[in-house]
Amino acid sequence: MKNAVSYKLIKEDSKSKARRGRVTTPHGTIETPVFMPVGTQATVKAMRPEQISEMGAEIILSNTYHLYLRPGHEIIKEAGGLHKFMNWNGSILTDSGGFQVFSLGQLRKITEEGAMFRSHIDGSKHLLSPEKSIEIQNALGSDIMMAFDECIPYDADKIYIKDSLERTSRWLKRCKDYHKDTENQSIFGIMQGGMHKDLRYQSAMEIVEMDLPGYAIGGLSVGEPKEVMIEVLDYCVDYLPKDKARYLMGVGSPDYLFEGVERGVDMFDCVLPTRIARHGLAMTSHGRVNIKNAKFKRDFTPLDDNCDCYTCRNYSKAYLRHLLKSDEMLSAMLLSNHNLHFLINMMKNIRKSIEEDRFLEYKREFYDNYGKF
Amino acid sequence: MKNAVSYKLIKEDSKSKARRGRVTTPHGTIETPVFMPVGTQATVKAMRPEQISEMGAEIILSNTYHLYLRPGHEIIKEAGGLHKFMNWNGSILTDSGGFQVFSLGQLRKITEEGAMFRSHIDGSKHLLSPEKSIEIQNALGSDIMMAFDECIPYDADKIYIKDSLERTSRWLKRCKDYHKDTENQSIFGIMQGGMHKDLRYQSAMEIVEMDLPGYAIGGLSVGEPKEVMIEVLDYCVDYLPKDKARYLMGVGSPDYLFEGVERGVDMFDCVLPTRIARHGLAMTSHGRVNIKNAKFKRDFTPLDDNCDCYTCRNYSKAYLRHLLKSDEMLSAMLLSNHNLHFLINMMKNIRKSIEEDRFLEYKREFYDNYGKF
Repeated sequence: MKNAVSYKLIKEDSKSKARRGRVTTPHGTIETPVFMPVGTQATVKAMRPEQISEMGAEIILSNTYHLYLRPGHEIIKEAGGLHKFMNWNGSILTDSGGFQVFSLGQLRKITEEGAMFRSHIDGSKHLLSPEKSIEIQNALGSDIMMAFDECIPYDADKIYIKDSLERTSRWLKRCKDYHKDTENQSIFGIMQGGMHKDLRYQSAMEIVEMDLPGYAIGGLSVGEPKEVMIEVLDYCVDYLPKDKARYLMGVGSPDYLFEGVERGVDMFDCVLPTRIARHGLAMTSHGRVNIKNAKFKRDFTPLDDNCDCYTCRNYSKAYLRHLLKSDEMLSAMLLSNHNLHFLINMMKNIRKSIEEDRFLEYKREFYDNYGKF
Repeated sequence: MKNAVSYKLIKEDSKSKARRGRVTTPHGTIETPVFMPVGTQATVKAMRPEQISEMGAEIILSNTYHLYLRPGHEIIKEAGGLHKFMNWNGSILTDSGGFQVFSLGQLRKITEEGAMFRSHIDGSKHLLSPEKSIEIQNALGSDIMMAFDECIPYDADKIYIKDSLERTSRWLKRCKDYHKDTENQSIFGIMQGGMHKDLRYQSAMEIVEMDLPGYAIGGLSVGEPKEVMIEVLDYCVDYLPKDKARYLMGVGSPDYLFEGVERGVDMFDCVLPTRIARHGLAMTSHGRVNIKNAKFKRDFTPLDDNCDCYTCRNYSKAYLRHLLKSDEMLSAMLLSNHNLHFLINMMKNIRKSIEEDRFLEYKREFYDNYGKF
């Protein structure tokens, strides 16, 4: 079987599990470890696509659930696929829609067939199954498609977790069987198993057997304490093959990115940088800054004196504060730009530090400057 | 007296009063007739400043009333002036704050001294006078400052109009006396007089005497029927000197721009292109388009097949409709970009048509294609 997507390990850090690698897709290469900006509804909020590629992003994520409901995957297919529809020429990863559906709580019901749910937009009833998820992702034309899995609460009952992970494995098989055009799109599997070592091991063995180009560690960053997530990550990654990409979903704060990289994760995504930007929060080399703060009223220096992004090169904190207080869209535009640039640049530095075999030193320096996370 | 701003008449159309000219300010030249994008709160909504200059804008307008209340003109002065604060290197025209204050209705009271008003933000009490308006505009550092005038309803009583225009003339004198740094900023006077020929004439004589580089025709585009506005414009412009710039405030729909140019107006401004953009309305060479319309659901062609703006080069109507329906900021960003480009490009074509002595032909062609305004 020819795979559209492949992973190449370039270098391993000698003092941690951090690794430098490269993912290749039909739309180019992605240097890893990588942070992927999220474009939920076929747009990374408040950004023009070329502004994201100019800051070095090689891949973005988009959401199957949202695009299925609006505008509908068939319209995007008719448009020539998601890349063309949204004017993004880099790689795209789409999630399976599972996470959003499972987040609907009362509005969904899970069976062996899939998940019945009601739309958050108009209440209409839909079935999302492994086959349907891949059908939608095929229509979108993303480079990397995520398998349809069940994402359960981190404190679920162990018997339920085992049942669920085994169903997730059966669903993965169904995703793979349904997907035909393996030259243009690849599937990543998702490991489940909650916070249980034996179940994580079982899940890993079942999904790795499918021989996919990448695997995600699912069911983390769903509300569990940070120590728990780190403990689970510590052993999970060891169950995954070295020659395949590893993806930790929904993670985007600087500390979680460092902890993930240290444990051998290659790919991350999160709405965090753009979401907090819309509330006036900036990530800087000196920690998080709330631009609403009155102390910035007459602060004519840039957001971050160590940053060379468009926002920091051209605007002052006083101006950004004025825009936010005045409910001007340019505020979200400039802060989103800064936060995305911050994370993408941080990952670039992380990659360099692995190449130079000084990842842990870089991590310590970064933490010292950042202060409280 | 040396003036920061000057107007040069380049060519007159032989079949109408349309004229090609050039305004020079300390921040560059402005080819006229010109449409000026509005950046009310020190930002043209949903646009980065260089996106506006790239489409050919040489001057923008900003609002004294808004900037006085938030962030405060002193903060902008400390920032190094409005140009630096908002990262705009072209020319800036500021209004006097008068129009906004008079729009407050019950919240303001007019005396010879000026206008007492309450802030629409926090209800605080302020006096805006000719001296205060110029003090604020001096702090902002705009190239062209508008004199503080009283803008009255178009159906006001004639006796009141006469009293008011005479006060406006006295206020203009006070503005001029207060303004010292005439090498860096210039004042434009504003003609009043309602819909009365004799009063317009009286007002023109009183303000023209001040020998300013430009004059605005005030009290139009305030709700009067289009025919009335055109009739008043017809005679007003003749009362103004040929060697000074003429500015019609608050006008931005394509038909009003053509009618104004035909009658010898050089400068226009309006929030229209960016405001309607936020509601999904686009100006195109085939007339106004409502992107929400269901017929665009599967329309993968650009907004305007005659447009080469960033939006039309890269996105389809189906995508723009999706963004708007999904409440995505990129919708306002792309439609604002298109509408501003449309008007700026239209003015470029108007200037060319005057140079080629075919303004009225161009107007007819444009109207034929545009259909209903």
